[in-house]
Amino acid sequence: MYGLIGKIKTLPGQRDALISILIAGVSGMPGCLSYVVAQDSTDANAIWITEVWESKESHKASLTLPSVQQAISKGRPLMAGFGERFETIPVGGQGIHV
Amino acid sequence: MYGLIGKIKTLPGQRDALISILIAGVSGMPGCLSYVVAQDSTDANAIWITEVWESKESHKASLTLPSVQQAISKGRPLMAGFGERFETIPVGGQGIHV
Repeated sequence: MYGLIGKIKTLPGQRDALISILIAGVSGMPGCLSYVVAQDSTDANAIWITEVWESKESHKASLTLPSVQQAISKGRPLMAGFGERFETIPVGGQGIHV
Repeated sequence: MYGLIGKIKTLPGQRDALISILIAGVSGMPGCLSYVVAQDSTDANAIWITEVWESKESHKASLTLPSVQQAISKGRPLMAGFGERFETIPVGGQGIHV
């Protein structure tokens, strides 16, 4: 499996709007075993996304899906940048639809 | 919801053993919506755990479960320390059993 942990910084006041775009754009992605969108608990302009994919390839392929392309183009103007980013290899746990 | 993203550093060569202990100890925890155990993709002695809970209270209560207490006491001797730790507020996505 392939995992990602990443932080997105939004423009001030745009977090809720970007969260809605992200959640709307990520359903039904082939190979996606988990995709959690969360607010940072202290930074009002930060979002965390934690992802689990069947493979690095299925994650890469998802970036070409129309729904994801749409979310990216709608969401990019609301973004101020990216924070921490960690690649992982998920091995088990709860809530992974293997 | 309440979320945690955390990195555990293990003693050299102890990652697989600690991963097994963690995965064995975290099934059936009330209020746990997602608990993913992953290897860091570059550091052979690092584990990432990403969690989603119904509430901060359900997470706190889980620490008193016999299965979790056992995992902690078995796992602690294999740990070298903790790395990054981020508290989040999950708001949606895929793979959260709400």
